[in-house]
Amino acid sequence: MSESTYPSVNDLTLEEKASLTSGGDAWHLQGVEHKGIPGYMITDGPHGLRKANASSTGETDLNDSVPATCFPPAAGLSSAWNPDLAFQVGEAMGEECIQEKVAVILGPGVNIKRNPLGGRCFEYWSEDPFLAGHEAAGLVKGVQSKGVGTSLKHFAVNNQETDRLRVSANVSQRALREIYFPAFEHIVKDAQPWTIMCSYNKINGVHSAQNHWLLTDVLRDEWGFKGIVMSDWGADHDRVASLNAGLNLEMPPSYTDDQIVYAARDGRIQPEQLDRMAQGMIDLVNKSRAAMSIDGYRFDVDAHDEVARQAAVESIVLLKNDDAVLPVAADAKVAVIGEFARSLRYQGGGSSHITPTKMTGFLDTLKDRGIDAAFAPGFTFADEPQDPALTAEAVETAKGADVVLLFLGLPEEAESEGFDRETLDIPAKQVELLKEVSAANKNVVVVLSNGSVVSVAPWRDHAKGILETWLLGQCGGPAMADVIFGVQSPSGKLAQTIPMNILDDPSMLNWPGEEGHVDYGEGVFVGYRYYDTYGKEVAYPFGYGLSYASFEISDVTVAKTGANTASVTATVTNTSDVDGAEVVQVYVAPGKADVARPKHELKGFVKVFLAAGESKTVTVDLDERAFAYWSEKFNDWHVESGEYTVEVGVSSRDIVATGAIALDGDGKTAALTEWSTFGEWKTDPIGSKIVADLVAKADAGELPKLPQNDMMDMFLNSMPINSLTTLLGEPGKQTTAFLLDEYAKATA
Amino acid sequence: MSESTYPSVNDLTLEEKASLTSGGDAWHLQGVEHKGIPGYMITDGPHGLRKANASSTGETDLNDSVPATCFPPAAGLSSAWNPDLAFQVGEAMGEECIQEKVAVILGPGVNIKRNPLGGRCFEYWSEDPFLAGHEAAGLVKGVQSKGVGTSLKHFAVNNQETDRLRVSANVSQRALREIYFPAFEHIVKDAQPWTIMCSYNKINGVHSAQNHWLLTDVLRDEWGFKGIVMSDWGADHDRVASLNAGLNLEMPPSYTDDQIVYAARDGRIQPEQLDRMAQGMIDLVNKSRAAMSIDGYRFDVDAHDEVARQAAVESIVLLKNDDAVLPVAADAKVAVIGEFARSLRYQGGGSSHITPTKMTGFLDTLKDRGIDAAFAPGFTFADEPQDPALTAEAVETAKGADVVLLFLGLPEEAESEGFDRETLDIPAKQVELLKEVSAANKNVVVVLSNGSVVSVAPWRDHAKGILETWLLGQCGGPAMADVIFGVQSPSGKLAQTIPMNILDDPSMLNWPGEEGHVDYGEGVFVGYRYYDTYGKEVAYPFGYGLSYASFEISDVTVAKTGANTASVTATVTNTSDVDGAEVVQVYVAPGKADVARPKHELKGFVKVFLAAGESKTVTVDLDERAFAYWSEKFNDWHVESGEYTVEVGVSSRDIVATGAIALDGDGKTAALTEWSTFGEWKTDPIGSKIVADLVAKADAGELPKLPQNDMMDMFLNSMPINSLTTLLGEPGKQTTAFLLDEYAKATA
Repeated sequence: MSESTYPSVNDLTLEEKASLTSGGDAWHLQGVEHKGIPGYMITDGPHGLRKANASSTGETDLNDSVPATCFPPAAGLSSAWNPDLAFQVGEAMGEECIQEKVAVILGPGVNIKRNPLGGRCFEYWSEDPFLAGHEAAGLVKGVQSKGVGTSLKHFAVNNQETDRLRVSANVSQRALREIYFPAFEHIVKDAQPWTIMCSYNKINGVHSAQNHWLLTDVLRDEWGFKGIVMSDWGADHDRVASLNAGLNLEMPPSYTDDQIVYAARDGRIQPEQLDRMAQGMIDLVNKSRAAMSIDGYRFDVDAHDEVARQAAVESIVLLKNDDAVLPVAADAKVAVIGEFARSLRYQGGGSSHITPTKMTGFLDTLKDRGIDAAFAPGFTFADEPQDPALTAEAVETAKGADVVLLFLGLPEEAESEGFDRETLDIPAKQVELLKEVSAANKNVVVVLSNGSVVSVAPWRDHAKGILETWLLGQCGGPAMADVIFGVQSPSGKLAQTIPMNILDDPSMLNWPGEEGHVDYGEGVFVGYRYYDTYGKEVAYPFGYGLSYASFEISDVTVAKTGANTASVTATVTNTSDVDGAEVVQVYVAPGKADVARPKHELKGFVKVFLAAGESKTVTVDLDERAFAYWSEKFNDWHVESGEYTVEVGVSSRDIVATGAIALDGDGKTAALTEWSTFGEWKTDPIGSKIVADLVAKADAGELPKLPQNDMMDMFLNSMPINSLTTLLGEPGKQTTAFLLDEYAKATA
Repeated sequence: MSESTYPSVNDLTLEEKASLTSGGDAWHLQGVEHKGIPGYMITDGPHGLRKANASSTGETDLNDSVPATCFPPAAGLSSAWNPDLAFQVGEAMGEECIQEKVAVILGPGVNIKRNPLGGRCFEYWSEDPFLAGHEAAGLVKGVQSKGVGTSLKHFAVNNQETDRLRVSANVSQRALREIYFPAFEHIVKDAQPWTIMCSYNKINGVHSAQNHWLLTDVLRDEWGFKGIVMSDWGADHDRVASLNAGLNLEMPPSYTDDQIVYAARDGRIQPEQLDRMAQGMIDLVNKSRAAMSIDGYRFDVDAHDEVARQAAVESIVLLKNDDAVLPVAADAKVAVIGEFARSLRYQGGGSSHITPTKMTGFLDTLKDRGIDAAFAPGFTFADEPQDPALTAEAVETAKGADVVLLFLGLPEEAESEGFDRETLDIPAKQVELLKEVSAANKNVVVVLSNGSVVSVAPWRDHAKGILETWLLGQCGGPAMADVIFGVQSPSGKLAQTIPMNILDDPSMLNWPGEEGHVDYGEGVFVGYRYYDTYGKEVAYPFGYGLSYASFEISDVTVAKTGANTASVTATVTNTSDVDGAEVVQVYVAPGKADVARPKHELKGFVKVFLAAGESKTVTVDLDERAFAYWSEKFNDWHVESGEYTVEVGVSSRDIVATGAIALDGDGKTAALTEWSTFGEWKTDPIGSKIVADLVAKADAGELPKLPQNDMMDMFLNSMPINSLTTLLGEPGKQTTAFLLDEYAKATA
């Protein structure tokens, strides 16, 4: 069948159109086979393919799936700050989908890590929307370059698991636009994901599936999204309302397509809207045909494993390295402690849980590489209390070693889709073990496995080194070994702040909400936007990460390229004798603004790989959006004229150079009205002339004089001119009338 | 005219009724003289009478008024924790109104000090609504005991000056009910103020003057308010909408009573509503007649001055007293430094500015009392920079003194109605002076004059003693001298937290708002409710204040007095040889709750005056409300069953005894619906039985079995049962139907 002969919505009956708007079963589209529309499979990602095993006891056992490469979940991959690497991961996932006849893989998930306790933080990318959007766009492009679709999720504002199917995330328009939308917006505009999955929650009282503003006005009309929107599994509570809002596909099906038929017949659904939604489904199927028609494809398991390994290496963040305790010398006497070293935790629980093609833990990797190391499990994953015998054994194992690699972290039960964490702390018995072990041997390197941020401040003084490895996917063991023994230098940078204490996080005042709603009271002050603006101490800042190499950033230039755009260049030099990578981070710091803006915001980054001694110059372009805030007054982005500082740094708290530029601004102004204050009239370009006239006429006796003293000035300046009468009587009335009349003339 | 012959609304024409709903001029009601309704005067308080001088250049010069006793503004008086004292102040103010023929004095203002930068904090009472309501109720009762009315203001949620005529205070229902309303509610129920003044701002988008829910549903129908509501000056922007909402009186008049007439004629105002509003005005006039008919009354200037003095003494809070540097011995060699000692700041600016009957500064007081003291002004009230000659003179003056009294504070320009402060800091030159002086003499006592909280943490280590005197009214000098020289022991307690840094305050994330709104993102976590719940360091906690005496609290008992009420007794003993007063503070700390509740909340207090060695037993009763939170789910107060801790302390951070009680709860429960989660069904008393039936029937093969594994349990528990179909297909559908049917039967 040639593309031109594919069926269109015009070839379908009403019932057939309706049938396209729900799945065929939990993991398939509903085809109209006799009209040439197959019911392709769509299934979970996002960090690898989770396709339920044919032998599975049911579609509801999330842990029984066919083998697929398990890449690092976003918690890890986001620390790579490397969209190209994400692209490679995406390509590999796309190939695996082709083999498994999966038309769309469900991911990536780019919701903002509003609070590190969020249960799905391990699946999400960052507290920063620019970083999340630019990294995940790479993954989307990679998958789709293979002719396989992605499903960008969960649109939008799914930042917690507590009451996730009902909770209303009550968020200001500004925070939506500046924090919770931009990752979606960027990926839609830059990568056109074939599908988007709506979130379970409500936004400001309206379920995402039924939110016309969200799915149609913003997503399609403003951003130009061309694909289809599907519901998260069970997120569609009203077929008709959802379809009218712009939801193409209910998943899984509730077998209620007749509701669509009836509503179309009685006018509750307009024909054009049903056609639009159904045609979207046909378009999706058509886009999938090429890849889905490839038979007998077998992906290269080893090559994908290699991609997973590089991704894992770049995911690792070196937080602390006192006395250069890392890398460990090849001939060092190594003690390995901690159950995680043997039973590596490499992914999170829930719909993203993958059956890997291979899996080598850290201890196994050492064995494979012929590295001798004493091992003690130190603890079990079971709840407290600690087994003293395990502590004793661990301390004994640590004694006399040149270096102790102590593997700590969160047990698998601690984090998953479906619930939020209640603490940032790792289990107390692990911290106790660290203290005992570090008392016996000062050269302790803590190797952390965890999907979301854990507290480090309470115990970090007991470790000389800390490697935050997040969840690394199936190559966790080899990747850790590569970094620990210096095969590669760590290059990961934190995609989220590690706070001193979770109670420092301003979202804790509204976490996880109550009585059906969660109020995003912190507005745009999420993550480093809060910590940096309000000068709060953090354990490790956003963008932070050490290397075995050392770098120098020099020759920074910031130049205006247009009225409201700029370009930044910087030279990065590897000043060490070790190969490595640095991430040049560009933040924009606004000057005086009409709204409370974060101290600075990430608006560009480049990861630079540099051989020992090598030097490269990088460029980051800043578009108008880089300087804008979302104005609720204008219901639009707004760039104010004035000074902005462009910062170049290697973390949000390590700015190495800055440049100032003066922008013209976008020229948006608000018209004066009776609700404008006298002060606003006095400072407006037009209004000020009218006020000058007013004063002149008052001096000439043609208009009443306004009372003059400091207190009255203060009152007047803050008073909308429609209130002048009550304050001043008849003179106020005449003043207001004069101002409004003259303004009408001046702007006619 | 006997009361029974007073006119009623039925005696008036439409035009006359309409005329009653606006003022006659800026400071008078509009009478209908020929029908026996006089146009009485109403004018500003709240801490004394501000009646514009007849010789004033205009009604708009707020600083030209007839002499009246200037009592301590609420910033000071609130620290007294003494409703009886507030009552005496009220009585005195009432008498001054009688003399001046003022029917209603505009005050007190009981808005919550949401953020200490708020420009009118000096006029408001506390960050805590219980304290504000109970103190200010004393003042209202005192004034009204004299047959003069009060105007409780500004109703409601006027917590900032920035954009105060337009800004929408966007606040959750819960925060309104728990934080921003209770002071008003308590005073309405306990003291029935004759009038209430609505605020300028909007609440959740609706101007207070036009807010039917606020002025009628809540104020009158729920709380039983019997008086009239007037607009703040210039707050009424729509006569018809406001009258319909429940605003009786526009002040000052915009001379638009014809709008009321037209609207009444064409049905936009119902006759009953106009009658209700106009009758309220007649009732107010009638209540005023007795006092307003007293001619030639002269209040006792000296007696009122004495009340002002005692009020001032009790307003002073001793924050720090290392080495018992205070009180100063009669024969000590004293150095007095600081312009405030000579030119005392004793009230704030704006509509509350009073012309006092007498005024003695601190230096003058010393002279009056024959106390020798060297003086140096140290600085001027002008802006920076410091004059080095003044510093040198001050240091020279300090040298060799036994004690240095260093008077620091906020210049008058720093705080006023009309604008918010931008910093908590006192001028830097004053801090520099402190450092220089304390280097020359270690025995420095800082005496602070300021209307709202100032930072002390940055400099307190340089002072041995700190007296926070706030603004003390016209007896500031004598009151300071009484406390400094030990004539009376200080007994003031902080009515608001002094934070380490203003950036610690969670309201700073939304302060002072932008683009026309300010979002109260911190919800109920205002003041100590935030600092104590989130464990943040503060400079001095809520309720804190030292004494020259020492006290012991013993024999604390907490006993249940009903299903949801309790009584607390405690014995307080003055264990010193100095007379003094202690404030016993009772806080309620809820146990596990369905919503996020503050760690503890003030629910009772008693100020106990004890001669040296004396002992008294006090009782505090806790009603059901003391344990309740506002449930948005029930749209009502809700007391959950379970454990509560009752704390007895002398500050929010100095709890000396606790008692646990188990409350029955109020029994409110929410009905189960299709939107209730499966988890909620399983834990509901009725639902759990139905789920048990379901399981039994499934085991018996009569209903489908639900899948059973940990992951599925997690999903199910968080899933509203209307979503079971999409997750489980037909079995889910049957399950949902069974649950709903059985529940309908069980609750029929």
